[in-house]
Amino acid sequence: MNRYAPVLRALGMIIMLFALTLLAPLILSYVVDDGAQAVYDEVFALTLLCGCFLWYRYRNVQRELNVRDGFLMVVLVWTVLPAFAALPFMLQLGVSHTDAYFEAMSGLTTTGATVLAGLDDLPMSINLWRHLLVWIGAMGLIVLAIAILPLLGIGGRQMFKAETPGPMKDAKLTPRIASTAKGLWIVYVGVTLLCIAGYRWAGMSWFDAVCHAFSTMGLGGFSTHDASYGYFDSSAIEAVAIVFMLIAGMNFGTLFLAVSRGSLRPYLHDPEARWFLVVCVVSVIGIAVFLRVNDIYPGMGEALRHAAFNVVSIATTTGYASVDYAQWPLFAPLWMLFLCSFATSAGSTGGGIKMARALLLYKQVYREILRAMHPRAIHSVRIGGQVAPSGILFAVLAFGFMYMVSLVSLTLLLLFTGLDVMTAFTAIVASVNNTGPGLGEVGPSTTFAVLNDFQTWVCIFAMLLGRLEIFTLLVVLTPAFWRR
Amino acid sequence: MNRYAPVLRALGMIIMLFALTLLAPLILSYVVDDGAQAVYDEVFALTLLCGCFLWYRYRNVQRELNVRDGFLMVVLVWTVLPAFAALPFMLQLGVSHTDAYFEAMSGLTTTGATVLAGLDDLPMSINLWRHLLVWIGAMGLIVLAIAILPLLGIGGRQMFKAETPGPMKDAKLTPRIASTAKGLWIVYVGVTLLCIAGYRWAGMSWFDAVCHAFSTMGLGGFSTHDASYGYFDSSAIEAVAIVFMLIAGMNFGTLFLAVSRGSLRPYLHDPEARWFLVVCVVSVIGIAVFLRVNDIYPGMGEALRHAAFNVVSIATTTGYASVDYAQWPLFAPLWMLFLCSFATSAGSTGGGIKMARALLLYKQVYREILRAMHPRAIHSVRIGGQVAPSGILFAVLAFGFMYMVSLVSLTLLLLFTGLDVMTAFTAIVASVNNTGPGLGEVGPSTTFAVLNDFQTWVCIFAMLLGRLEIFTLLVVLTPAFWRR
Ligand SMILES: [K+]
Ligand SMILES: [K+]
Repeated sequence: MNRYAPVLRALGMIIMLFALTLLAPLILSYVVDDGAQAVYDEVFALTLLCGCFLWYRYRNVQRELNVRDGFLMVVLVWTVLPAFAALPFMLQLGVSHTDAYFEAMSGLTTTGATVLAGLDDLPMSINLWRHLLVWIGAMGLIVLAIAILPLLGIGGRQMFKAETPGPMKDAKLTPRIASTAKGLWIVYVGVTLLCIAGYRWAGMSWFDAVCHAFSTMGLGGFSTHDASYGYFDSSAIEAVAIVFMLIAGMNFGTLFLAVSRGSLRPYLHDPEARWFLVVCVVSVIGIAVFLRVNDIYPGMGEALRHAAFNVVSIATTTGYASVDYAQWPLFAPLWMLFLCSFATSAGSTGGGIKMARALLLYKQVYREILRAMHPRAIHSVRIGGQVAPSGILFAVLAFGFMYMVSLVSLTLLLLFTGLDVMTAFTAIVASVNNTGPGLGEVGPSTTFAVLNDFQTWVCIFAMLLGRLEIFTLLVVLTPAFWRR
Repeated sequence: MNRYAPVLRALGMIIMLFALTLLAPLILSYVVDDGAQAVYDEVFALTLLCGCFLWYRYRNVQRELNVRDGFLMVVLVWTVLPAFAALPFMLQLGVSHTDAYFEAMSGLTTTGATVLAGLDDLPMSINLWRHLLVWIGAMGLIVLAIAILPLLGIGGRQMFKAETPGPMKDAKLTPRIASTAKGLWIVYVGVTLLCIAGYRWAGMSWFDAVCHAFSTMGLGGFSTHDASYGYFDSSAIEAVAIVFMLIAGMNFGTLFLAVSRGSLRPYLHDPEARWFLVVCVVSVIGIAVFLRVNDIYPGMGEALRHAAFNVVSIATTTGYASVDYAQWPLFAPLWMLFLCSFATSAGSTGGGIKMARALLLYKQVYREILRAMHPRAIHSVRIGGQVAPSGILFAVLAFGFMYMVSLVSLTLLLLFTGLDVMTAFTAIVASVNNTGPGLGEVGPSTTFAVLNDFQTWVCIFAMLLGRLEIFTLLVVLTPAFWRR
């Protein structure tokens, strides 16, 4: 038991901190008197107690966290916190523990798929809690993606370390995370405040502005309305959303540099940002033309508006919808799901394999083709002007391979349960990439509530697998991990 | 034009040689007077003339083939020969050019999927031609897989060069191929004669014995009967088939060594053979128990007999069926299709990613997990006791990634055409792995004739992609290949 003591102590502290975030919906619930007060009282007390107990039990442990502890802690945080986060949904809304856990996991992994219908009529505090989960999950993700995963060497993440600010030479986990995280969180909070202001200016209520700013900055995709952004039907609001989704889809480290230097130059030196923006702009224009040619919208302006919002929403793995794009000719939504599998940057809150890895995968496949044509020449893979070390390339290729294996095997698993292929495949793609809505029965106009319990658990696993970049979870699921 | 002259001259010679193989069905047709004589006269003359013309046109070219020519020639051989091979099907049976090309491609790639029904009533010479195509395709494949692809450095094929007999230091293509091929072909012909004798002894007619020996040794899976091996319903015949399918599923280089040394020891030192046999035996026993438990067959003996034949048939990418295994509970046929994607050896006539690559992929994914757990330790990937060079590992990982990408994208393409998922996915798996029968509408009891023309061409492309190990085709499809 002692072996896991440092992890459990840290987990206890995280649960205690997490309990404090429950104060937000608790206070709101008392202020607006939406009937959920008692539930938050109970859940807050229970969560705080559990956290305190763990922390108190192991408070005297001196050992620092090592790399192996890091893996265990990441997996524990992303599986235990959703269990606490699910309690308000179970107790207040009476949904099953499976659906409640799905909703919480969907929030904390910033997936934004929902099993709840009638969002407009939920207690305000429940909606705040859903959106806050996305924002907290994204905050945790920033630490995970920028500080922890590179240290753990997951899927070539080391490569992207150089791009983040601050000294990164230390071998122990804790001090570095704290210093890196602090700077990034300040930026994250600042941009979120700007986003709230933007939404309010564009016409949202304060409550909607706060909620949607949370789910925009986390690229989560939750909304307080069943019709998502279709409810507002406002170009101004959509424009604000597009700007902030694009910002959140790029590396927060780059944003941090840009803010601290007061210059956009860091973005020019960020190869991921460049390709991300190119891919988004080209896809928006292409799909707008495609929609106009297919006569889906009477004018080019309207086609451009809907293409811009929905393509950026899916490509950044956010998952908002302003129209039911599943009704567009199939090429368009499938292309959007294809984009969400690779468009966002490695240091962002987006999902998928990330642009950095996608570029490396493309370059490596092309290198193999060149190597076959010119076997004696030296072919190196470069990223950002530097030759990528082979350890990184192996990690990225292994990641790409396991990503594809995950998609195929989890889709087959859903097909076994009797789902149709469109629903099964897009549910897995949307879950593994932490995007949210798929197509078919889990399209933008419906919810994941149509899935049975087993199917829901498969999607929960897929969301977790994607959020933890596959190998974090694989490592912990390996017998060798548990051997002394 | 001159640039491609050496390739075209060589292609001319190959077409001329190929024309000679048409003499076999031609002579049989005259002997048994099955009414197809005139067709073979025409096709033989046309093929020979085309080959002569090409060769005569470029007979004075002196330049040797280089590596780039090698790629072009492999792709040309595997696309042009099926066009000539398809002519008897078009002219005698009156099938469409799409279906005829499919049947010829299916034969020459040793896939063994058929669009023809009423096989029992076909002219004997047509059946001989179908089976001969498999045998010739497999002969060409042995050259391709053992002599050419390693030189071209496709998907880590270099790794397996060491296992093949003969000196392999030369840089030019032609002399080496000849010397390597000769020894292997002698073994191949010898084993085929043994197989014919075995089938005859077990009770087949001479004609059936010859045809089925051809498609067994080539791991093709064509039969002269619609019911495939169900027609014979003979344990003896099935036992003979199992023995020779297993032999053909292992490296012919190992067989060559074993024969020339008169010892089974080379198989003990062949890591692919060991794992191939383990996987086959375990799967046969497992599926036999599974069938018995599910009460598909009344006795364990019967379950074992049918499991042994059909599992070995699919795992070796042969594609015979003695019963309609698509009627078994879905786990069994899906497991069989899973096996066919990796079980056979790199120097065999089987399809799929090959055991050598599968082992390397597994080891690399595991290495990434270990590397994440112990970042400072050195983790090398070994195969057959040697550390695998990183160039090989990159090639294999890139191959594995592109293999998965091919499965997913081609399946999506078929789904677009309106096929159901089971048919689409298994048709692609069975085509890319050169196995033959899939499930659903293209299961063992039906044919690929249910596909429309576009779907048929997708499967043709998939068969070719799999047979040419993906990158051979990718290289030739790259614009850089055609630049001077
Ligand atoms: K999302
Ligand atoms: K076959």
